[in-house]
Amino acid sequence: MLIIGEKINGTRQKVGTAVLARDADFIKELAVKQVEAGAVILDVNAGTPVEREPEDLVWLVDTVQEAVDVQLCLDSPNPRALAAAISRVKRTPMLNSISGERHRIEGVLPLVREHGCPVVALALDDAGIPKTVEERLAIVRRLIGETRKAEVPDGNLYIDTLVLPVATQQDAGMTAFEAMRAVKTEFPEVHLTVGLSNISFGLPDRHLINRVFLALAMAAGLDSAIADPTERELMREMLAAELVLGHDAFCRRYTTAYRKGRYGFVPKPTN
Amino acid sequence: MLIIGEKINGTRQKVGTAVLARDADFIKELAVKQVEAGAVILDVNAGTPVEREPEDLVWLVDTVQEAVDVQLCLDSPNPRALAAAISRVKRTPMLNSISGERHRIEGVLPLVREHGCPVVALALDDAGIPKTVEERLAIVRRLIGETRKAEVPDGNLYIDTLVLPVATQQDAGMTAFEAMRAVKTEFPEVHLTVGLSNISFGLPDRHLINRVFLALAMAAGLDSAIADPTERELMREMLAAELVLGHDAFCRRYTTAYRKGRYGFVPKPTN
Repeated sequence: MLIIGEKINGTRQKVGTAVLARDADFIKELAVKQVEAGAVILDVNAGTPVEREPEDLVWLVDTVQEAVDVQLCLDSPNPRALAAAISRVKRTPMLNSISGERHRIEGVLPLVREHGCPVVALALDDAGIPKTVEERLAIVRRLIGETRKAEVPDGNLYIDTLVLPVATQQDAGMTAFEAMRAVKTEFPEVHLTVGLSNISFGLPDRHLINRVFLALAMAAGLDSAIADPTERELMREMLAAELVLGHDAFCRRYTTAYRKGRYGFVPKPTN
Repeated sequence: MLIIGEKINGTRQKVGTAVLARDADFIKELAVKQVEAGAVILDVNAGTPVEREPEDLVWLVDTVQEAVDVQLCLDSPNPRALAAAISRVKRTPMLNSISGERHRIEGVLPLVREHGCPVVALALDDAGIPKTVEERLAIVRRLIGETRKAEVPDGNLYIDTLVLPVATQQDAGMTAFEAMRAVKTEFPEVHLTVGLSNISFGLPDRHLINRVFLALAMAAGLDSAIADPTERELMREMLAAELVLGHDAFCRRYTTAYRKGRYGFVPKPTN
């Protein structure tokens, strides 16, 4: 599992304030903590008004790169902000995101093509998030038609089949899992990603629901997630799911995390 | 999910001691606690030497029935003990277990037939637990051939496809899940059950692995488990998995458990 650290997101109030105040220490700490916790990529989203976003995203990128040396996932609907940030990154960034929406394809796909970026691709279009598996698959097919035309390799796509809240649609989880399986069957080279928190919207103890959803999604082929790697129970669940699904050779990642007392594991002293 | 409470098992040292000492209070408390926690069936296993087991199992059944009014799962390899206990139960009991082993079929299947009992059926035979899905499926096919000949309805079977430790066989979890799916596809009327703890044998923090295995097995069709319903994190995981898998209409079981503060949920005060 590839964890894309989600915490540097200006739509979260504290982060937004830090971006506006140019509080580099706060941002750097978020970066370091996520990388220490196991994030391999960091999402960076300025979340500020469109006219100042390019400048803010550039500042974020510069600040994060002073603190850690990892791939960034530049997160914005604004091609101008993405283009400005791409000029500053040390490693080829992931872009977040394209979708079946016409303006996203026209605005972001050229950047993906030009810079050879991996990209998050959402299974929605100008009509919104479709309810059925078949409709989402149809969007993914059209989208992959476009990315192939732009010579983007399927392996650079991180498809988010999207998930609706189970509180309002009882089969929301199953629909998400079926869509994941369907995409992976038809396009075996693509990666699958997902935002974890939508499934639990409106329900109590959301972290519990989110982490169980993560484990079940991994069984459906999910191989990356935009998530908070400092959430210990989530990370323990992920490690255990990798283990049970046979993705952890010799149980090494699980037993190492346990032995080092990571993610809240409490190792017993050995004699 | 049907939870079969596992705690009244004489092979656990404290329970074994209580059985030998005829400590009815201890046994009754185990029964009451499991039923309060959500067990719908209680497994009762005397675990004592074969010559005294019938008498011990009868005492256990009588004792448990003085405390709670639920279905029992009579758990013994010994047909004499099962027959003695069947004569005392107030409700048709589940029997645990038959398998592809010749002596189990000959000893236990006649009781299943005569008393119309649901029965746990293990996917192993005289050669032991097979490694592959196909071999386990072959045993299940032979076993269901026998149960159908004895006019046992498929819906009375609780098939345990068995699970090996992931520490010694990396694909142990996936093999278990594939076997579950294969059985359910070929015999849609049967139930699936499983012992949770084998998967984590030899690894640290076994409860974490066991509960993640449970959630993933539920996605593969598991609809019952012999487990400890007083284990709060396990039960929360199970509730969340039912919710995410779309088996909890209107999220009612999940939100009720939360609101009542069951299983360690800490409800926030509503205004």
